[in-house]
Amino acid sequence: MKLSVLAERIGGRLIGDGDVDIQAAASLEEAGAGQLSYVAMHTYREKALTTKAAAILVVSEIEGCPAAQVVCEDPYLGFARAMLELHPPARYPARISDKAEIVDADIGEGSRVFPFAYIGQHVKIGRRCVIFPHVFIADNVTIGDDCLIYSNVSIREKTQIGNRVILQDGCRIGTDGYGFARESDGHHVKIPQVGRVVIEDDVEIGANCCIDRATFAETRIGHGTKFDNLVQVGHNVRIGHDCLLVAQVGIAGSAKIGNNVTLAGQSGVSGHLSIGDGATIGGKSGVTRDVPPDEVYTGYPAMPHRVWSRIQKAIMRIVKEDEESER
Amino acid sequence: MKLSVLAERIGGRLIGDGDVDIQAAASLEEAGAGQLSYVAMHTYREKALTTKAAAILVVSEIEGCPAAQVVCEDPYLGFARAMLELHPPARYPARISDKAEIVDADIGEGSRVFPFAYIGQHVKIGRRCVIFPHVFIADNVTIGDDCLIYSNVSIREKTQIGNRVILQDGCRIGTDGYGFARESDGHHVKIPQVGRVVIEDDVEIGANCCIDRATFAETRIGHGTKFDNLVQVGHNVRIGHDCLLVAQVGIAGSAKIGNNVTLAGQSGVSGHLSIGDGATIGGKSGVTRDVPPDEVYTGYPAMPHRVWSRIQKAIMRIVKEDEESER
Amino acid sequence: MKLSVLAERIGGRLIGDGDVDIQAAASLEEAGAGQLSYVAMHTYREKALTTKAAAILVVSEIEGCPAAQVVCEDPYLGFARAMLELHPPARYPARISDKAEIVDADIGEGSRVFPFAYIGQHVKIGRRCVIFPHVFIADNVTIGDDCLIYSNVSIREKTQIGNRVILQDGCRIGTDGYGFARESDGHHVKIPQVGRVVIEDDVEIGANCCIDRATFAETRIGHGTKFDNLVQVGHNVRIGHDCLLVAQVGIAGSAKIGNNVTLAGQSGVSGHLSIGDGATIGGKSGVTRDVPPDEVYTGYPAMPHRVWSRIQKAIMRIVKEDEESER
Repeated sequence: MKLSVLAERIGGRLIGDGDVDIQAAASLEEAGAGQLSYVAMHTYREKALTTKAAAILVVSEIEGCPAAQVVCEDPYLGFARAMLELHPPARYPARISDKAEIVDADIGEGSRVFPFAYIGQHVKIGRRCVIFPHVFIADNVTIGDDCLIYSNVSIREKTQIGNRVILQDGCRIGTDGYGFARESDGHHVKIPQVGRVVIEDDVEIGANCCIDRATFAETRIGHGTKFDNLVQVGHNVRIGHDCLLVAQVGIAGSAKIGNNVTLAGQSGVSGHLSIGDGATIGGKSGVTRDVPPDEVYTGYPAMPHRVWSRIQKAIMRIVKEDEESER
Repeated sequence: MKLSVLAERIGGRLIGDGDVDIQAAASLEEAGAGQLSYVAMHTYREKALTTKAAAILVVSEIEGCPAAQVVCEDPYLGFARAMLELHPPARYPARISDKAEIVDADIGEGSRVFPFAYIGQHVKIGRRCVIFPHVFIADNVTIGDDCLIYSNVSIREKTQIGNRVILQDGCRIGTDGYGFARESDGHHVKIPQVGRVVIEDDVEIGANCCIDRATFAETRIGHGTKFDNLVQVGHNVRIGHDCLLVAQVGIAGSAKIGNNVTLAGQSGVSGHLSIGDGATIGGKSGVTRDVPPDEVYTGYPAMPHRVWSRIQKAIMRIVKEDEESER
Repeated sequence: MKLSVLAERIGGRLIGDGDVDIQAAASLEEAGAGQLSYVAMHTYREKALTTKAAAILVVSEIEGCPAAQVVCEDPYLGFARAMLELHPPARYPARISDKAEIVDADIGEGSRVFPFAYIGQHVKIGRRCVIFPHVFIADNVTIGDDCLIYSNVSIREKTQIGNRVILQDGCRIGTDGYGFARESDGHHVKIPQVGRVVIEDDVEIGANCCIDRATFAETRIGHGTKFDNLVQVGHNVRIGHDCLLVAQVGIAGSAKIGNNVTLAGQSGVSGHLSIGDGATIGGKSGVTRDVPPDEVYTGYPAMPHRVWSRIQKAIMRIVKEDEESER
């Protein structure tokens, strides 16, 4: 693709030779002839002076850069759009394998079902979906258009999935919630989990994640929310739209996560809590009470980040005093 | 089901109209006509005054509640029992799919094997079991009666599973323990793991959990113990009966967990330790030494909860002093 | 196997009856007639005086021990080697099941492919590999010789796997990296992940682990590195040779882990950091800045272990002072 065409498609202003042919995207260090890269942060601008990339996306012109430049407001976002142009998603010709087992399903046109997929009864799958091998789709599941369901995924009974949803390999959607009542002799009686999971449009769920279905009503993942791998979501949880849940996060039952919330890696949220819109929870933090909107919480128990930072400083001061008093 | 019948089955005392027809269970806020709910905690008693539920389970009569009431000692436990009456587990007609691969197995009557299940040789499966698609059962595995083995589960060689065991989708039972010896040049030599996993009666294992088999003898999960999702159990671990292991817990090799122990979410136990009967480990805590029976331990390293609480208070006091001294 | 033969094979010096027949290995407490055990630590030497084992491996002769003894420099390593002699890995006769789906693959001689395995196009698999049921191998994957790919594993497009690699059940190799750019309205645009995963020789990956493929180039796991279960590796990560990653560890994107590094259970490493050769990260620790070679880091944020220990002591002293002042 000509750089001038690419620049126009991502809405950037071209500086330099627009006729250069761009074949691929790469990191600033690795990019070479025919490759596009980007400079997202000012600290990387110096690196641009020695790049071998054919072109780079920048927030403002970099003097002395040997590559052609495309100026755009958010180079990282521009780069994401450019990559979608340069590396469009794989296409899978429509075909329902006769080595798949389909009990009773309504599958939209253009969809692909690979061998060894299992699809139960009263299932509805939209158009242009891809169902990879070893996917298990239980009875009464509904899936929208343009979904990618990768290998070894389990979608349990009654789950509802929107459009353009991506389920990475091995994730489990709609498994039984963890609900037991204790008898006086200490035995645990299983509480039937008769609800469902609802996944809205444009959600991506990472590999080997688990999302339990609700006890009665629904566990819901809002539109545009993106999960990394190995994330756990308990029953009855409600997650808003456009959230980021980084790897190995755990959300306990009935918690309510707002919109545009970021949960960093290995953090956890206790049951029945609320996290406000736009809040950020630090890595490894454990949330044990409600978090107000737009706050950054860190630590265990999680607290406002500035309090946590102050504690770290106070601790280091005490240790230093200890060391000095020993001398 | 008539409320009077339901009340009798769960051993509760009826207040109000016993002829009302109960079709389903729901939460107190969501329950409507024909639905049963419960009030487990006193803080929720006020909500019962405006419920639209047809009937509720209570620990003692709530004056002014519009719904019929069933008084029982433990409403949550009563509710669990009521749900089992109202929402009995799905039934699967006995059938061995000819699209399953069964090398050499003795399968009891009433069992169901779905397409694409793989069952190795010298396998014994009891009566009324359900083996979902894409389950892998290796050689020399024994499974009792009335087990539910959900999709994509792996049961490795020599595993022994009791009766009424539920394995949620994608869990891995009997994978190789993590055992290596270090050569002088830094290479790790794999130690063959020739033991097995034993899972006793009435155990439930959550989605995508991993339980490694023992180096020599057995990794054992005691009867009635319930695992949430994504729990890790190392080789040679012994877990007692009626324990609760919440999501993302990790137990390192050769640890010994007593009976009726609760491990809250994302907590961990180091190798070779003992946790006494009835102990509780707080969320995200890391146990680095033995825990006595009936104690509550929290933090990292885990310590008695009252010590941990005192530390939190002391830290907050120091931070406050710091802030004041800066003014 | 005669003890004298075994002693010679592992390079140990025999004390006692070399004609005793050794059939199996066991722990010191459980070993009986015909069984071999070992004494790795001095604290266990007393136990050797009452062992029923036929023979034990020791670092130096134990007076009064009833069993035959084999003296070797590193009894644990010797034991690993002895176990490999006594319990050689299972052998799988070469056979390509006609119930597997193989689109277009070059499979070396001596390999076994079980029913319900799916192998895509342009795939190359070496000699003497075993591909278990429900394995998914995407297009353009290369696998070396003598690999064991256990059940329900997913190997995504373009992954390169070396020789003697073991993938435990349910691990996911080469899934999409977690990369998104944020639009001004809060929506996340998926950045195509067009790189690959490279796994070098003699690596073992535990059950239900996830290793994401790189954005552009490669995520690489160095030779001889061993993963426990449920480990997460983000895109673009580079891990050196002979590392140990214990269960539930998480490595964020673009981190660089040196050689011979140990990451204890449930620890985490933030993105773009470097961990030096020979470093050890404590259990549950969270690394938030670079770690120098050969250091032991603990805590969150992770710090040199001696500083962390001093903090623990200082905290306990403060709590004690608090308690005393209250009396």
